[in-house]
Amino acid sequence: MDKIDELATALARLPGIGPRQAKRFVFHLLSVPSAERSRLAALIADLGARVHQCPDCRRFYNPASPRLRRAGGTDSEVCNYCSDSRRDDGLLLLVEKDQDLAAIERAGTYKGRYFVLGGVLTLTGKGGIREKELIAILEKRIRNGLKEVVLALSATSEGEHTTDHIRLMLAPYRDLIKTSLLGRGLATGSELEYSDAETLRAALSNRKET
Amino acid sequence: MDKIDELATALARLPGIGPRQAKRFVFHLLSVPSAERSRLAALIADLGARVHQCPDCRRFYNPASPRLRRAGGTDSEVCNYCSDSRRDDGLLLLVEKDQDLAAIERAGTYKGRYFVLGGVLTLTGKGGIREKELIAILEKRIRNGLKEVVLALSATSEGEHTTDHIRLMLAPYRDLIKTSLLGRGLATGSELEYSDAETLRAALSNRKET
Amino acid sequence: MDKIDELATALARLPGIGPRQAKRFVFHLLSVPSAERSRLAALIADLGARVHQCPDCRRFYNPASPRLRRAGGTDSEVCNYCSDSRRDDGLLLLVEKDQDLAAIERAGTYKGRYFVLGGVLTLTGKGGIREKELIAILEKRIRNGLKEVVLALSATSEGEHTTDHIRLMLAPYRDLIKTSLLGRGLATGSELEYSDAETLRAALSNRKET
Amino acid sequence: MDKIDELATALARLPGIGPRQAKRFVFHLLSVPSAERSRLAALIADLGARVHQCPDCRRFYNPASPRLRRAGGTDSEVCNYCSDSRRDDGLLLLVEKDQDLAAIERAGTYKGRYFVLGGVLTLTGKGGIREKELIAILEKRIRNGLKEVVLALSATSEGEHTTDHIRLMLAPYRDLIKTSLLGRGLATGSELEYSDAETLRAALSNRKET
Repeated sequence: MDKIDELATALARLPGIGPRQAKRFVFHLLSVPSAERSRLAALIADLGARVHQCPDCRRFYNPASPRLRRAGGTDSEVCNYCSDSRRDDGLLLLVEKDQDLAAIERAGTYKGRYFVLGGVLTLTGKGGIREKELIAILEKRIRNGLKEVVLALSATSEGEHTTDHIRLMLAPYRDLIKTSLLGRGLATGSELEYSDAETLRAALSNRKET
Repeated sequence: MDKIDELATALARLPGIGPRQAKRFVFHLLSVPSAERSRLAALIADLGARVHQCPDCRRFYNPASPRLRRAGGTDSEVCNYCSDSRRDDGLLLLVEKDQDLAAIERAGTYKGRYFVLGGVLTLTGKGGIREKELIAILEKRIRNGLKEVVLALSATSEGEHTTDHIRLMLAPYRDLIKTSLLGRGLATGSELEYSDAETLRAALSNRKET
Repeated sequence: MDKIDELATALARLPGIGPRQAKRFVFHLLSVPSAERSRLAALIADLGARVHQCPDCRRFYNPASPRLRRAGGTDSEVCNYCSDSRRDDGLLLLVEKDQDLAAIERAGTYKGRYFVLGGVLTLTGKGGIREKELIAILEKRIRNGLKEVVLALSATSEGEHTTDHIRLMLAPYRDLIKTSLLGRGLATGSELEYSDAETLRAALSNRKET
Repeated sequence: MDKIDELATALARLPGIGPRQAKRFVFHLLSVPSAERSRLAALIADLGARVHQCPDCRRFYNPASPRLRRAGGTDSEVCNYCSDSRRDDGLLLLVEKDQDLAAIERAGTYKGRYFVLGGVLTLTGKGGIREKELIAILEKRIRNGLKEVVLALSATSEGEHTTDHIRLMLAPYRDLIKTSLLGRGLATGSELEYSDAETLRAALSNRKET
């Protein structure tokens, strides 16, 4: 395979990018000054070294003082959410990926801890976290005061599959921790006429006195 | 204006239809046998006489036995939901339009009474119900056992405007009836990453123990 | 079937309208004053009587002076394009439907005659014109000076199918009349990168010296 | 700016990519093994060295034998289209970008030479080719047998602007070379009813006898 196609194939692995757009990316990159390509390549190559994965919540974050970290720090340094003592250790919110966590933070009302599954939960850990690992993490957190796990997966069939899987996994811990699901109902912009029966049933049973 | 344009203009008043599609409708109608046009015209002309508006909930419905109705019935005949004695008089759900009511019925869990606002609530009644009329209706229902009004408007800015308006209107009746709003949260299919802050805040505060 | 569903079913026959939108139309019609429904019904019912189908080109048109026509006129009155003596009898442009003819007129350069096929060409005439009829019409026009038939069908597979059919049908008249097809090439707004091979081949072979 | 945002900003320069999708790319890249990131970075960094820009037509191509080239070759090595002696030196087709050239090649009928403008034609050469340079190139080609320049720009307002600019520029060479434009007309899939007047006028005047 030639170099144009080789790069196009690599770029086509980016989420939402097909072979055609990947090829446009290659020709775009060919058209820019080589310094811009070098800079992009450096940013990609260094990404893992410069961005840290928090050992506690597994989210990716930019360490506040990378210089200090590189000098004396260790890879066990936790992120700002995990090190924030004002956050509630009794609550743990599980999300699928970093952008979901960012969306919850933007909402601005959640003050507990997070955990990023990093993909689908599997027995092998390929493409996400291994079931055994997740259990070990939760057991440790239960010893440290965890009272409720919030399963904050998307309201899609994939998200519901993961939710069901984790609920089953957590069943033996029922006496120690509560498990909760995000509330269902009308999302902003939903019109009644076009809402599905499941959403309307949830909206009716979750109705709020005013 | 010629007859083709005149009909196109009338058809362009149908919801969601622009002048171009309206014109396609006209040419389609010209291409069908004249008997089909006559039949459609008759269905439209007779619509008001054959479909009944329930004097209680104001929804449009097909009377079960139109012949009887025309013989001895009166226009005060109520619809099957309003005449169903198994439905709960303590609950009244307010919707904007008939299709919203149909969506709630499809959800299959609501067993109270309905009221169709028929558009936006106004002081004059143009394009919907007059505020005074709605109050009179609610006062009568309160005397007959109404305990809770469910404001089932869409989660759009227009729907929220109507909701606010009615909440204000119902404030003086606070000791007699509860007012509730449909629950907000993730609708079926919603992805966390793309959900707005308001929806996520509702989803978090409405979270359900499982 | 009840009257709401009956009208919804009839409206769902309009081009591009599904059962859901048809139902919205019904509730919209229920919500307007009955005078507006009556007027729409009258416009539809009278459409055939008020709009004339030209016996020559088969397009639908509004007769200039309907009063005169009704008094002394006959149904054989031809439309303004067919009666316009400045138009060229040597050219006949075949289109599928009235809106296609209107698009050609808007382009403003064609000064020959028209013929509206009114759907797909069939052996039986159901949903369009019968092959035999079309041949009779063309033979008559050949006797009256027709020199070229322009097959102005859409560049879709359906349009090409019709084009092929008519070309075959016209083969025996090859010595009497020319048959031509609309030019293919880049349409306004086409980007080279996304153009298909057939379009580019036509654009190359139809290239114009400037 | 932190490293996640820095990379997201760089990726948002790719054609058609907004800040949100760029961020998804970053998190995707964080989630893959670091070897995959390194490989992608290397492909981007080496792109300029491995892919050659043809000095004649200015297209980017993969040299057939990079080893030989690196050993004894020079940067003046031309691409396979430019070195192909069966191609016609009398014809030169000007395109805006590499993907446009690829589209013409896929069409399979053009057998002349190419020239890639590499963006918009400017007086300064920023973002494309300098006007002076293009004239020098054309004058050299005229001496070598060029007879016709095909301006193969997109049928967009930007493409037409470039076409007009080059036509003006070529006016003084009118006696030496022909200038031609791609044919306009119905593109594959075009429906008559929805075609603009300009396209229909071209389709009518380019109509083909069959």
